[in-house]
Amino acid sequence: MKSYLQMTREELAEEKKELEKEFADIKELSLDFNLTRGKPSPRQLDLSMGMYDIISSASILRTEAGTDCRNYGSLDGIDEAKRLMAGFMDCSQEQVIVHGNASLSIMYDTIARAMLHGVLGSAPWCRLDKVKFLCPVPGYDRHFAITQYFGIEMVNIPMTAKGPDMDLVEQLVNGDDTVKGIWCVPKYSNPQGITYSDETVRRFAALKPAAEDFRIYWDNAYAVHDLYGNDRDVLLPIMRECEKAGSEDMVYEFCSTSKVTFSGAGISAMGMSERNREDMLKQMSVQTIGHDKIKQWTHTRYLKDMDGVRAHMAKHAEIIRPKFEVVHKILSEEIRPRAIGSWIKPKGGYFICFEAMEGCARAIVAKAKEAGIELTAAGAPFPYGVDPRDATIRLAPTFPDLDEMEQAARVFACCVRLVSVEKLLSRSE
Amino acid sequence: MKSYLQMTREELAEEKKELEKEFADIKELSLDFNLTRGKPSPRQLDLSMGMYDIISSASILRTEAGTDCRNYGSLDGIDEAKRLMAGFMDCSQEQVIVHGNASLSIMYDTIARAMLHGVLGSAPWCRLDKVKFLCPVPGYDRHFAITQYFGIEMVNIPMTAKGPDMDLVEQLVNGDDTVKGIWCVPKYSNPQGITYSDETVRRFAALKPAAEDFRIYWDNAYAVHDLYGNDRDVLLPIMRECEKAGSEDMVYEFCSTSKVTFSGAGISAMGMSERNREDMLKQMSVQTIGHDKIKQWTHTRYLKDMDGVRAHMAKHAEIIRPKFEVVHKILSEEIRPRAIGSWIKPKGGYFICFEAMEGCARAIVAKAKEAGIELTAAGAPFPYGVDPRDATIRLAPTFPDLDEMEQAARVFACCVRLVSVEKLLSRSE
Repeated sequence: MKSYLQMTREELAEEKKELEKEFADIKELSLDFNLTRGKPSPRQLDLSMGMYDIISSASILRTEAGTDCRNYGSLDGIDEAKRLMAGFMDCSQEQVIVHGNASLSIMYDTIARAMLHGVLGSAPWCRLDKVKFLCPVPGYDRHFAITQYFGIEMVNIPMTAKGPDMDLVEQLVNGDDTVKGIWCVPKYSNPQGITYSDETVRRFAALKPAAEDFRIYWDNAYAVHDLYGNDRDVLLPIMRECEKAGSEDMVYEFCSTSKVTFSGAGISAMGMSERNREDMLKQMSVQTIGHDKIKQWTHTRYLKDMDGVRAHMAKHAEIIRPKFEVVHKILSEEIRPRAIGSWIKPKGGYFICFEAMEGCARAIVAKAKEAGIELTAAGAPFPYGVDPRDATIRLAPTFPDLDEMEQAARVFACCVRLVSVEKLLSRSE
Repeated sequence: MKSYLQMTREELAEEKKELEKEFADIKELSLDFNLTRGKPSPRQLDLSMGMYDIISSASILRTEAGTDCRNYGSLDGIDEAKRLMAGFMDCSQEQVIVHGNASLSIMYDTIARAMLHGVLGSAPWCRLDKVKFLCPVPGYDRHFAITQYFGIEMVNIPMTAKGPDMDLVEQLVNGDDTVKGIWCVPKYSNPQGITYSDETVRRFAALKPAAEDFRIYWDNAYAVHDLYGNDRDVLLPIMRECEKAGSEDMVYEFCSTSKVTFSGAGISAMGMSERNREDMLKQMSVQTIGHDKIKQWTHTRYLKDMDGVRAHMAKHAEIIRPKFEVVHKILSEEIRPRAIGSWIKPKGGYFICFEAMEGCARAIVAKAKEAGIELTAAGAPFPYGVDPRDATIRLAPTFPDLDEMEQAARVFACCVRLVSVEKLLSRSE
């Protein structure tokens, strides 16, 4: 198989003709697959249904400490849920607040609070002329939507194989007091599946921010979402590293069971220093009387502890690993030899991030849509939806069935080839 | 039995001596009752445990429309939950957004959004020099905590037997464009148990606010919380009245199942006009992917419809009505003839509001505490915790057992008598 880059104009034109025929055949199939979001498949959701067999009208819904989970109270969550979520974040139980059904809402609230009330006594951000957040790219579109909603200026930070470009992060955080935060998905990053190296985590912990109210927003969304059991990426626990560096107030960590039990019906949590925790609880005491303790009860009784979580996640991996691998296989066969795209084969997480030739992403997503495959909008993994290179495409392989995913990957490969050929032809005009 | 007001100084002194002896005997009992919050009792919470018998690992957790409740999505809630909550608010299903476990959080979010993003395009309140909220008093302390947290100036509005003093409300809302909202608990108000009259509701709907971003925050927390079955207060539906008056954008209505099923583990909802709903969903789409649909599923399957809700609430009433009545009985026997306090006998809700002699509330609460009865802090039902007359005490009879409540009411009556005698003696000095 020949690299497209080495083809003559005539060879490319010939290839294009064949691909157009292939594409026309695909369109005949009237496919309708949705690969836009990182959603668990129904089979994955089935894995947690046992949770509803451990609760019935006969259950005594009391915590270990005797609190009635059916009544008001316990603003920071029940102890056993704090302990469980501390395991996700590798921090101590005392550093945890258990929240509602989504870590996204905690992040939103945390920023909203900073806007109106500042951080640990700092000036409210809404009174400042400029507030900036660093955004490692490609990244998670919902993070960027929050910062955009609050009018926070977003600064792109390139991702490397070891995490964000830390030279740039250090320069901006340590040198610019309008930089108030950085969004991080440190393990199996969304969308690339990169896990930050030990050095990266340590450099984060060693930051000396110009702004006292700068915080690292450490969204450990895929903390336990390994695809290959013990052959997994290991992330240094940021909170412990910050403690060692004396910078424990600098980080907020987030996690949830959204892709462990039920998406939108799990529990979420935040880990942070004692001072940050007090600050947050002050706000929360105005906002709520407490989160859903019955759900905390069912989750802790069902998952038990981190061993239970790992065993549970191994079942998820059984279901989704083949889907990741079929995408990897097809891209390896169809794309790699033709030198028209690259990707990282992740050991976990929910995405495969495809890097097309520059200027091709939007066209590929449009082509795929024409063929009945809905992909995440090109540009979505970038602040303001703008991918400066128009090259990044996020693939979400978990939701479709395995054969659907295989078919979708083949169609995707065809679209990539067709758009790449067109691009190369237009270049050589 | 003689009114204290007609007693001579000698009679009062004699009474005081006897009461002091009685109080000393009470202290010997080392009571420990908590009447601070409106919490359901365990027996009430038992009423909803059947909800966990209708869900098991074999359940198909799909909505009527076929949506998988276990996965992401449905930002505004599932249709059947919208329909159920529309019944609470007597509005149409299309006007409802179903939220998480607490209406308090929706109220907080709604104000936070107005602070940072304004209301339907108005200037964000954080940019204004002054923002005021009207607070019918006595009222709900958690409402006042929200407005205080956001630095909103609170203006006391006296309650009457028909609701807030509407002359004053009209004057302030229609004449002052810094008045952006009013907190209302329109049915079985917290703490007095007053239901707004039809005329009051119509006058609310007919307000012509000076501020375009003025909203009525209609916290219909006790919509179905009747104590006497069909002998219940009937509240005019504000949303329908506003539609008739062409002021449908002026009201946000809130409700929840916190005191129907589980406190902190129920579902909540907001009702509003189409324009307000769009405005809210825009913000919510940044804040969350959606609320817990499994809980919406279990709630709608368990409660079914408003007939189901009424039947369920009748069981609550069976449990709590005797507690309200014993308080009423003891106060009628011990306090009324002595003319040292008044209260309304409510037909529903969660509280009895006791009006002591002016200047006595804090002393009574302190005395009760000395006797082992924890009451809501005096002043709590007022903005900034300041009761200008120091007279209002909120009693929450639902949580204790019936005999505990009876005992607590007797102790309370003793404390009221003792403090009142002391007050009268100090006056006549």
